[in-house]
Amino acid sequence: MKEKNEILPTSLNQLIHNLNLLPGIGSKTAQRLGLSMIKRKKNYLDNLISSLSEVSEKLKNCQSCQNICENEFCSICLDEKRSNSQICVIEDTLDLIAIENSGYFKGKYFVIQRLISPLNGIMPSDTMVDMLIKKLNQIEDETELILGLNSTADGEATSMYIVESISNPLISITKLASGLPFGSDLDYADSKTLSQALENRKSF
Amino acid sequence: MKEKNEILPTSLNQLIHNLNLLPGIGSKTAQRLGLSMIKRKKNYLDNLISSLSEVSEKLKNCQSCQNICENEFCSICLDEKRSNSQICVIEDTLDLIAIENSGYFKGKYFVIQRLISPLNGIMPSDTMVDMLIKKLNQIEDETELILGLNSTADGEATSMYIVESISNPLISITKLASGLPFGSDLDYADSKTLSQALENRKSF
Repeated sequence: MKEKNEILPTSLNQLIHNLNLLPGIGSKTAQRLGLSMIKRKKNYLDNLISSLSEVSEKLKNCQSCQNICENEFCSICLDEKRSNSQICVIEDTLDLIAIENSGYFKGKYFVIQRLISPLNGIMPSDTMVDMLIKKLNQIEDETELILGLNSTADGEATSMYIVESISNPLISITKLASGLPFGSDLDYADSKTLSQALENRKSF
Repeated sequence: MKEKNEILPTSLNQLIHNLNLLPGIGSKTAQRLGLSMIKRKKNYLDNLISSLSEVSEKLKNCQSCQNICENEFCSICLDEKRSNSQICVIEDTLDLIAIENSGYFKGKYFVIQRLISPLNGIMPSDTMVDMLIKKLNQIEDETELILGLNSTADGEATSMYIVESISNPLISITKLASGLPFGSDLDYADSKTLSQALENRKSF
């Protein structure tokens, strides 16, 4: 059997290799993506290259919340209508978009970029967690910190690290509720979710 | 609800838009891909840009079979061990890889790039079909043309167009067998596949 990299030209294999490095993109999808990029008209590749160059040049982290933006501060931090008395800590911009799309939250964010994960060699210094803690410990007004990290082992560990590192008495800490998703079928809920929904039951 | 493009910086939205143009990449996947591209270390973006530029500069179509390659002719057309008396016509390089990976076929290919699809405005002149037909009608040795196009309406129409346009008596035409996939369960086969498997049954 001829190997794939013998059939395809070297430059294309290199592109496919780079695409394959992205999370959720297996070798078959990378191949399909690479081939469909070159199958499009020539100016598609030019557009893609120029948008990547622009992103590479322009994007930086917001100095206040570490969200990605093109200026010193992101549009959310600059928005005067949003409250400074609530800070929601999240892992990355995808989480920020999800919360913004719910339309419920009107405070500010802090993006820690990665979760602490000692098993994978990701220590607090590899994330923005220490910057968050420093920021919180310097706050001089009453502020609610909402823990909005994934409810995974790494997420819980990171939340615990943050909670234990905050020494400022003006900070109150809350976390997103655990329970049944909206519209879900009790029948299909896993037992951990169901236990949490029972444990956190509210009076009607 | 704040719209997504308000939350994300313009340059990133442009990148996500370009990714969203690729087949099989919806808006959510494009967002996820774009964000994971910038989440990686800076030299990832540089590598991706340089591999795209290289692909954009170097790749062309093989002058003999229209497969993508970096030189005048692709490695398969240059391979002297492969027979010239069999030409398998396929839609694109993904199909070529699939057939190569089976390890069965030792002839040459012809890649028509797109299937004829009048309903979608794709006429023979938008594909490489006419080039194939010209090539076949000029062949001076007995040659088998294997129709390896998808068994869809467009694939069948393209096959018919090719068959009807060949006037060279030295060309014999075959098509890939229709029937049950290897390892499949009779129970799960759709009725069209089953009818074809019955119709094309072989004596044991």
